[in-house]
Amino acid sequence: MYNNLYNNLVVIGGNASGLAAASQARRINPDLNITVLESGKYISYSTCGLPYFISGYVKRAEDLLVYPKDFFEQKRNIKILMGHRVVGMDPSKKELLVSVGHAQENKIIEYDKLIISSGGTNIIPDIPGIDSSNVFQFRNVSDAENLKDYIDSNNPKKAVVIGGGAIGMLLAEAFNQIGVKTTVVERKERIYNEFEYEISTILARKAEIDGIDILTKTSITSINANSGQNTATIEDASGKKDLECVLVMLATGISANTGFLTDTSIELGINGAIKVDNKLQSSHMNIYASGDCATIKNIVTGKQDYIPTANNAVKTGRIAGENAAGGNKVFNGSVGTVVDKVLDLEIASTGIGSKEAVSLGYDAIKLIDGFSSHAGSVPGAKKIAIIIIVDTTSRRLLGAQMIGGEGVGKRIDVFATAITNEMTVDDIYMLDLSYAPAISTVWDPVNKICGKAVLALDGKNV
Amino acid sequence: MYNNLYNNLVVIGGNASGLAAASQARRINPDLNITVLESGKYISYSTCGLPYFISGYVKRAEDLLVYPKDFFEQKRNIKILMGHRVVGMDPSKKELLVSVGHAQENKIIEYDKLIISSGGTNIIPDIPGIDSSNVFQFRNVSDAENLKDYIDSNNPKKAVVIGGGAIGMLLAEAFNQIGVKTTVVERKERIYNEFEYEISTILARKAEIDGIDILTKTSITSINANSGQNTATIEDASGKKDLECVLVMLATGISANTGFLTDTSIELGINGAIKVDNKLQSSHMNIYASGDCATIKNIVTGKQDYIPTANNAVKTGRIAGENAAGGNKVFNGSVGTVVDKVLDLEIASTGIGSKEAVSLGYDAIKLIDGFSSHAGSVPGAKKIAIIIIVDTTSRRLLGAQMIGGEGVGKRIDVFATAITNEMTVDDIYMLDLSYAPAISTVWDPVNKICGKAVLALDGKNV
Repeated sequence: MYNNLYNNLVVIGGNASGLAAASQARRINPDLNITVLESGKYISYSTCGLPYFISGYVKRAEDLLVYPKDFFEQKRNIKILMGHRVVGMDPSKKELLVSVGHAQENKIIEYDKLIISSGGTNIIPDIPGIDSSNVFQFRNVSDAENLKDYIDSNNPKKAVVIGGGAIGMLLAEAFNQIGVKTTVVERKERIYNEFEYEISTILARKAEIDGIDILTKTSITSINANSGQNTATIEDASGKKDLECVLVMLATGISANTGFLTDTSIELGINGAIKVDNKLQSSHMNIYASGDCATIKNIVTGKQDYIPTANNAVKTGRIAGENAAGGNKVFNGSVGTVVDKVLDLEIASTGIGSKEAVSLGYDAIKLIDGFSSHAGSVPGAKKIAIIIIVDTTSRRLLGAQMIGGEGVGKRIDVFATAITNEMTVDDIYMLDLSYAPAISTVWDPVNKICGKAVLALDGKNV
Repeated sequence: MYNNLYNNLVVIGGNASGLAAASQARRINPDLNITVLESGKYISYSTCGLPYFISGYVKRAEDLLVYPKDFFEQKRNIKILMGHRVVGMDPSKKELLVSVGHAQENKIIEYDKLIISSGGTNIIPDIPGIDSSNVFQFRNVSDAENLKDYIDSNNPKKAVVIGGGAIGMLLAEAFNQIGVKTTVVERKERIYNEFEYEISTILARKAEIDGIDILTKTSITSINANSGQNTATIEDASGKKDLECVLVMLATGISANTGFLTDTSIELGINGAIKVDNKLQSSHMNIYASGDCATIKNIVTGKQDYIPTANNAVKTGRIAGENAAGGNKVFNGSVGTVVDKVLDLEIASTGIGSKEAVSLGYDAIKLIDGFSSHAGSVPGAKKIAIIIIVDTTSRRLLGAQMIGGEGVGKRIDVFATAITNEMTVDDIYMLDLSYAPAISTVWDPVNKICGKAVLALDGKNV
């Protein structure tokens, strides 16, 4: 049924996307030789759960490992090679140059088909002192173990987190929970800068209430540990000053981990990510790419984008694995759905924001309102704020964002499903969503905010 | 802009649907005279919250009132007439015959346009002794107050609930919580009989663990209070026997409250419900109907159906109100989404079940699996069971049902949105749904069960 002229599938990367790819390839084709090359010493771990290990909410790093190596080797007949870092490749010969183990001995590994799921890599800002021993990255289990060891040994009382995105805020929360006074330094106008102003402001206020200091429009100009000082120097509109800190965390975002492709003809796109088509095929027909190292189609904009979420990593992995194994599946893309639980709030987004809508030329309106997570008659309801972005011409929903105490995570998925299906606010307003007093209000907040949009579009009083 | 040749809008029924209709009519048309006729002494209450008043979780019946009369009269300029029961009508004269107050004096009320939102009425089974003073109905605030008074005065230790649907089980839970030993008697094969076997069985087991007795394939043949006995006689395949009980609850379902239309030419459909078109217009052009007294289009079957949920009541009310006030909105229908929180489980359904799929001629498959509500690495995850029904020809999702400890209510809405948009399992499998370890698994259970369906449809190992 499938083309079996080749039989040697190699996957670069042993985390969510690579293992999803390898597993799907096995489901599709029982006869392939499948080998996964993992540069580190762990596979299949919950990247998003790492902050819980720092706060102690998750006790052991092992608890973040989703499946053991044996599971893949024995149940799925997938060979896993740990400590195998791909450092170069020659697509014309279908060869990978691989550095193995601590000794870093190089060897050549051949493939018939290749899936690159090499993930993301932290963006390291060019700051004097960024190489100090008290500066930590936070991307994988080893990073988390190093940080945890440092905290246990040095008992730091003050930390600076560079970057107020999701990872930065989750780390700030974890530090706060273990008694480390934390300052988040964000270069841009606000934390969670990708979100609408009103949503990220609610989170910033909660951070302040919880005792986390937030400095926005502020840069780190140097980290002074190498010169024997427990400070980092920051700069904002009012000038420079020193912040006391023992621990500095880098949370300035990621780019695609594709350095080893520099000398190849594999086309790269936004953020250094491998350009792929809707079958997850790269510019080379035997090479597929998935997850944080690859571009992904944004369903709303129709363009190739960089949306490095775990949800996208596993899905693109599956499709890449299926197609590399002889299948022919199309991946329709992502609407950029994200959710975090941070500072006891759920914060979520899907689709595009108001700025992006304007930049794409939409005549868009933005609606915001507050809701109750469930009926007020039943104790325990929490507040939810919702923003939607609507195209006034087509009346289509373009984006939605929410923050609140509960019921945000899966409600954003209703918006995500609606956006994927190009629904108008008229139709979302009338969606038959579930109601019970302990679970929702009779009009679900998703219906309500769209009803408000309908009235606004119709020129009626809200 | 709108037709103002008429100016007198009358709404029959002052609960969710009627008030949604009246309010939307006001938003659309500031000049109308709007009058709501309510037969009882309460308006705008949470029918679905009534069991919480019996269990004491909601302390006062007033807490179940959503908006006070003043709100509608003063803020929305809607006249509310309490104790006004419509007992007949003459559509040719546009007249209602109304029985007013305790004295039951009749008066004539005229309308230009009429919206009938008279709700549902309990189906009273024909059982000897059903008129006993220890037999209670449970439909409105007065019913709940009567029941609560009886319990407070008589302190019953044993109750029988006739009917194992949602209301029956919610009442059984409430009784159980206040120490009344309860037996649920269900004529059909199982409780929650509209659900798939596997889902309702999980709920039945939980009921037994909680100490609620469930008797299925069992009928009540008589209630013996009138003959001085604290028993009800039941009959199953093994014969008749007496069950001790002081309190008997009727929970045998509802039909449309349309008895007052018997002598009119207004067309009625399934369950005595008023037949309406997609603009909620009845067979008479000046008469609209909404909520539990009206038929509703089932999006999956394409047929007029009877789906008396609160979510449908408010939505059809809005559309009926808008159109009666001169608007021109279309209601696309309902996918029959329901959720209950009962016995600490969330149980939900949308679309059609496997039996209905077969009866409609689909070549359908049914998939079932168990999932975790969120990532196992974060403490507190609960189990969820999901069933989906898939058309093998079009690969479209036809229905979904779930039961579990958390995360069911709003996940069913993703399925509801998907069914509304006629999505295939292939596309739902790849939906970009939100992930954070405390909120979901990387593949949301919604994706996963559809992925299983895709493999099954493709003839691959799951």
